This record gives sequence, C-alpha cells and structure tokens, in this order.
Amino acid sequence: MSIQPKQTGRRRFLRDGAALASLAVGVMRPAGGATLEGETPEVPAKDLHAYGERSRFEMSLRTGSIGTWPTQTSGPDYRRDFGFRTPLQDSVGMITPPGLHYIVSHGFEPPDIDPREHRLLIHGMVDRPLIFSLEDLRRLPSVTRVHFLECNGNSAPSGPTGPPRIAPAATAQDTHGLTSCSVWTGIPMSLLLNQAGVQKGAAWIIAEGSERGKHHKSIPIEKAMDDVLIAYGQNGEALRPEQGYPLRLLVPGWEGINNVKWLRRIKLVDEPYMGMRESTKYPVLRPDGKARWFQFEMGPKSVITRPSGGQQLFARGFYEISGLAWSGGGAIRRVEVSTDGGRTWKDAEMQNPVHRKAHTRFGFAWNWDGEETLLQSCSTDERGEVQPTVIELAKFLRVEPDFFQKTSTVVGHFNAIQSWKVTRDGSVLNALF
Amino acid sequence: MSIQPKQTGRRRFLRDGAALASLAVGVMRPAGGATLEGETPEVPAKDLHAYGERSRFEMSLRTGSIGTWPTQTSGPDYRRDFGFRTPLQDSVGMITPPGLHYIVSHGFEPPDIDPREHRLLIHGMVDRPLIFSLEDLRRLPSVTRVHFLECNGNSAPSGPTGPPRIAPAATAQDTHGLTSCSVWTGIPMSLLLNQAGVQKGAAWIIAEGSERGKHHKSIPIEKAMDDVLIAYGQNGEALRPEQGYPLRLLVPGWEGINNVKWLRRIKLVDEPYMGMRESTKYPVLRPDGKARWFQFEMGPKSVITRPSGGQQLFARGFYEISGLAWSGGGAIRRVEVSTDGGRTWKDAEMQNPVHRKAHTRFGFAWNWDGEETLLQSCSTDERGEVQPTVIELAKFLRVEPDFFQKTSTVVGHFNAIQSWKVTRDGSVLNALF
Repeated sequence: MSIQPKQTGRRRFLRDGAALASLAVGVMRPAGGATLEGETPEVPAKDLHAYGERSRFEMSLRTGSIGTWPTQTSGPDYRRDFGFRTPLQDSVGMITPPGLHYIVSHGFEPPDIDPREHRLLIHGMVDRPLIFSLEDLRRLPSVTRVHFLECNGNSAPSGPTGPPRIAPAATAQDTHGLTSCSVWTGIPMSLLLNQAGVQKGAAWIIAEGSERGKHHKSIPIEKAMDDVLIAYGQNGEALRPEQGYPLRLLVPGWEGINNVKWLRRIKLVDEPYMGMRESTKYPVLRPDGKARWFQFEMGPKSVITRPSGGQQLFARGFYEISGLAWSGGGAIRRVEVSTDGGRTWKDAEMQNPVHRKAHTRFGFAWNWDGEETLLQSCSTDERGEVQPTVIELAKFLRVEPDFFQKTSTVVGHFNAIQSWKVTRDGSVLNALF
Repeated sequence: MSIQPKQTGRRRFLRDGAALASLAVGVMRPAGGATLEGETPEVPAKDLHAYGERSRFEMSLRTGSIGTWPTQTSGPDYRRDFGFRTPLQDSVGMITPPGLHYIVSHGFEPPDIDPREHRLLIHGMVDRPLIFSLEDLRRLPSVTRVHFLECNGNSAPSGPTGPPRIAPAATAQDTHGLTSCSVWTGIPMSLLLNQAGVQKGAAWIIAEGSERGKHHKSIPIEKAMDDVLIAYGQNGEALRPEQGYPLRLLVPGWEGINNVKWLRRIKLVDEPYMGMRESTKYPVLRPDGKARWFQFEMGPKSVITRPSGGQQLFARGFYEISGLAWSGGGAIRRVEVSTDGGRTWKDAEMQNPVHRKAHTRFGFAWNWDGEETLLQSCSTDERGEVQPTVIELAKFLRVEPDFFQKTSTVVGHFNAIQSWKVTRDGSVLNALF
C-alpha cells in the first residue's frame, strides 16, 4: 500500500455524521437506516447531504431476475432469466446511471469484497509473476474511457427471452435493455503485462473472477495488449458491486461475457481454456452442425428510445425522435431514421461527444401527422459496417427470418433494425416482425 | 403532455417488486426500507437489483453544512458554512458521482417538486409568453454536454472559509471541493427564446428558482443565446434534488450562482435586477472603494488530487500524480506539473476526453526519492490564459499576498496554483502559503 488517507473513511464518516446530526432534513423522502446483520451499528441514519439519492418521484428501475439460464425456462420468471435490464426508454444522454446498469452474472450475487484484502495475480507464461493490491494499482498511470457493455444475447427474439422481446407490448428495456454505457477508469492491461514480461508462445489470457461460480474467460493476447483495461472506476467513483467491485476486466466492444467482474487472476497461456461458457453456451451453431466457438465483437446496432414501446403520444405535432447507437467495431459514423416504415431514410443528428465503442445519442426532428406509421433507426460504424434488417440478418446467417422466433436457443449478436409502430391513437408498439 | 408511459412508474415498480420479493439477496449490505412519513407504505424494502447502491466499503462523503453565509461566522459550523464539498481527493476520471456533487443553496433544502406539476414560464419582453411542462420540454431537440460547476468562493483563503482552507491538514475537499463536473442533458435556451420571440431592447434574462428563498439571477442575453441550457438530465438520469430537480439553468463556465436550480421562471428585461446576491454578496470590492458588480467567468484552475493533503506515501518509488484542471474560458490546452517547488515545470499528460468548460483529468509520472518537496500544477486554457501563482494573483488584484488571509470577506475567483508539501515521512500537507 502506498497512498492512504491518514484519517480513515469510517472515522471521517462518523465525525461528519455527528456534526450533521443536529441538522433537520426538511424534505420527505425515503431515508434508510438499517444496520449490517450481526454487527454493531456503525452506520448512522442515511444523510442525504453526505451522499445523495435521486428524487422520490423518479421510478425508473431495472427489471429481471438474478436467475441463471437455462435452468429456468418456464414459470413466472420465464421472461426474466437473463439478468437485469436497463430502462433505456427513460435514458437521456449517453451515460447509464450506475444504479441502473444492466446485470448478467449467471445466477451469482456480487461477492462482498473488502478492497483492502483484494489482490490481482498475474501469472502463467510470464517472466515475473506479479500480485497487485488496489493501492498498488492506484499508483500506476490510469486512463479514462467511455465504453458500452452488451450481453451477446441482448435483443435475441429466440430462446427463453424471446416471447417477451417480440410481444407487441415490449418496451425498449424488454428489447434492448442488456446494454449500458459508463465512463470507466483503470490501468491499461498492456502496462501490467509488459511489467510481468510476456513469454514467447503466450497467445491467450485467462481472466478469472472471485464470485462463487469463478467465471473465467479466454481472450486473445492481441486484444489484451490493444485496449483492454483493468478497471476500478465507473462514472467517477468505485465500480458498483454488481459491476465487479473492486476490480473488473473491460474489453471494449466485445461480448459482455469477456468483461470478467470481481477480477482476481490473469493467467497467460498458449491456447484458450474452453471454459463452460465458451464451449457450451456462447458458441454459434452453424447449419452444418459444427459451431463457431469464439465470436467476440458486437456489431453496429441502434434503438429509438423515445418514442418507444409502451409510451403514448397524446397529440400530433413536433417530437424529437431520440435514440442510442453503438458498435463494437469503433465509432458510430452515421445514423439514419425512417418514419415511414423503411421507404425513405434521412440522416439523424449525432450528439457530441461521440466515443469509440460507446453509446452515441442521436436525435431526429419529426412531425407526427396522427397517422399510423413505423419508426426505425439504422447505424453505420467507422468501418462502414451497416446495421442489417431482420431479413438481411437472416440471409447473412443462412436461415429463414422466422428461424429467430422458432429456435429454442438464443441467437447471439442479434443486431437487426428495431421497428416501433405508432398507432392512430398514439400508442407505440413493438413491431419487430 | 405528449409522451407518457402507459403503465405508470409506480405500478411498474409494484409489479416488479412483487415479482422479485421471493428472491433472496445474499449479500450483506445496508438495505433501507423506511416509508414516507405520514403516508401508507407504498415503497417496498429497497431492492438493490432494481436500483443499485455503492459498496458498503466505500466511505467517500461530502462534508459541510447547509447553513447560509454569513449568519454563521463562528462555532462548530464555522468552517462549514458554504455548503457541501465534493471529496476530490477520491475522484477518478472527470465525472462527479451525483451523490457527491457539491451543494451550495444558501441555507435552503431542495424543494420536494412533483415533476408532473412543475412548469417553466418564459415572459417579459417576448412576443409570446410560453409555459412548458417537463413533458413539453422532452418533445424538443435535446443536447448533452459535459460541464463543470464551481462556486465563485471555491478555494478562497479568506473570510469564514479561510482558516480550514489554509490549515496544513486541509484536504483537496477542503481546499477545492466546491466544484464538480457532470454530463448535462437539456434544451438550448436559445431554442426556447427564439420560440417566444425576443423583443427589441431585451438585454438580460432574470432566472428564478422554486425554493423557499426564490433565488434569482440576472444574465446577459448574449450568454443566454450562446450556450446556456435548460437542463433536466445529469449523468444519464434526472437531475438530483440538490442539483435543481426537475429543471435547472446550466450556464457553462460561469460562477455557480448563475446556474439557477429548481428553475420556474425566465423573464426577459432591459437591465439587470440587482438581486440580493448580485448587489450585496458577489461583487468584488476594489481598492478605490467601488465594487465590480458582475464578474461571471471562472478562470483557468487546477488541483492535484492524488497525492493531496491528508494522504500518506508509505514508500519511495513510482507514483502517478493525478489531478483535475478546468477553465470557464473553454478547453484546457496544457497542464504543467512541478515536483520541486516551482523551479522546473514539465507537461502533464491530459486524459481524453477533453471537453470545453469541463474538468479535465491530467496525469504525471513521478518517482519519489524520499525527500521533502512541493507538488504543484498549473493549467492553461484555449485562450492562452495561465493559472497564476498566489503572488501573481495578488499583483493582478493590486493587493499584498497576505491580503488573502487577512480580509474578512471571501475573495471570489481565487484560482492560484495549489501547493502540496510531501514531507520525509510521506505525509502530504497543504502548503498554499
């Protein structure tokens, strides 16, 4: 440990808590005050001046369940078995509030890690195995980058997530809620690997988490040396527990599964480990019966968040159509919007800042004439890759379009154009098919 | 109202709350469950899956009091009478978590505003007075921008804030904590003013808040038409109550006092109103006895946040010196760091993204040899304006350097270079003078 506050956080908390105890809080809002089970009360009643909360009128919430797939394929949690979804229909700008960041953790609750006890081990095919404390990492040069994360099953109209995703009543949270975007701060992994000394023949890293399931993932060393981060910060403070507190891997633009949370170990090896989630859950079955085992990068994608499914237009006239676009391939270069079911497309305005491998907000001026219509968005990334229609995506995958609805397994990397239907009464409905 | 969820937030909350009630939360963390005073319990026990919280090990907090200046000039709150300060010494990246954003509200708690009832009135010297609901505003084209806010009294080594600010034990929170930086989303004010039709001769706007004190501020119409926002979003969700929920003025780069919170009224007039805080508190007294009444823009400034006052170095060797720089005049173009008390200066590395009128994170590689030294940072903005030393600032203001400590009134816009002293035992001390 290198830099430490002389006065511990807890002592400072108590001092300030005492100083503030005499001040009445004049606003009626929920104020928790529970103590940790089995411990002497150490935390005073919540002080919203010391650490604030959102307004009691704000009710936007994650929906879903912690349950793991595919053990729950029916029953009340049938629609909820892929984690917790971000309420994108309520989003503004391009950053997701940490309390609403999507969660997929394959059935495991976040471990309760004391950062003072946590260590990161780098070993395997290296010259010098290294162990880092959090304080060791904080001494090193840090970088800050805006990046989205997305579950590879996000938006899949198939498998256990399918029925609610393709229902007419689906919201943008139901259809696209397994993606979020944050400002991440951490250490470039290349810096740590160079310090450890990568041996000849080391071609992959295996990253392992601390949760009960010990999720691990094989990642090519080229990517690790490129733009992967060992992240400890999210939106200006420590990672949230559900996002890997106190340390996670951040693998920009690649499937969420690579971004190992509660990171405790990185081993350099000569070939991938074919972990459970690499060999049995995330490969893509090909028509010839073989499977593509590694498919990392998320394609160009977009969704209109306002107006979107479940919202209601009460009057004709001007509306800004607002949405999010992103690509694992880099920056979004163009977003086109159609308000006539795909007959004509016009460029939307992209809002600064536009970051690589990050959610980008777009806006499009629209006058609703009161008639039924379809609203759609289509993104193009810096490599020129264009978000496909459902029919184009099916053709690319050599399946019939109705395959997406019929198959019992999740079709990963589903990035087809989303359609929202505006009816004459102003209702907005999901109209993917 | 135009776009509304068909299912209200509260109904959705209850539905999901019920669905989730059967799921055990396996992590020991504080979980509040208080109900609103005098109301039937409507909010179930806090569900961290629905809306998350930070780890129980994170203890970084705002410090200060809500008390107004100058009614408290002695006693236990003597040092705390300017609002609540952001713990900059714990910051990473360039965004402030909303729960830790600094608060100055001149003694008033945030009003408990129902956004469905809130309205914004634009009147005075306009062709068409307009009233907007929140939903009306959400229909209009929005923009998202990263901007700092700063109290004009931040860092002042004088007046009631002075003694703790210049004490050797002062932290970066004590010295510079009345500034924060957020991702703001809202409507350009120019759009609303153009819609209302600005009449000839209208030269100022008067913005008024909804809190008990009805804070109001006069702002030249040129600035209002330039880059001022009517903001409803902060870091991807609604403004926090302490930051003006549901609507505030965002006046990029100008003194915090201009950024009227809980905004309810904008009146176009032909001359400033000389409100209480314009005529009696914020003017700058000149040596000739007259006062400069309007001084809006915050100058180039910076502070090293790590290592900073109150932290401890436990070993010699490599440390990244990390800090924040900002200017009301635009983008930060250069940050220089000195590790030898100002004898030599070298360029620090500025971290992307660099936004105009926003906190910018800089980093500087440093090897501590175990000897006593001073650490300092100096920023330059896009206009070429350079952050001054204390002596240069005194010279500019035509006062002796010790004036800053002797005067009983706060010297606003104090942006002198901050010095942290590293002692041989690794302690870090405030060394402004």
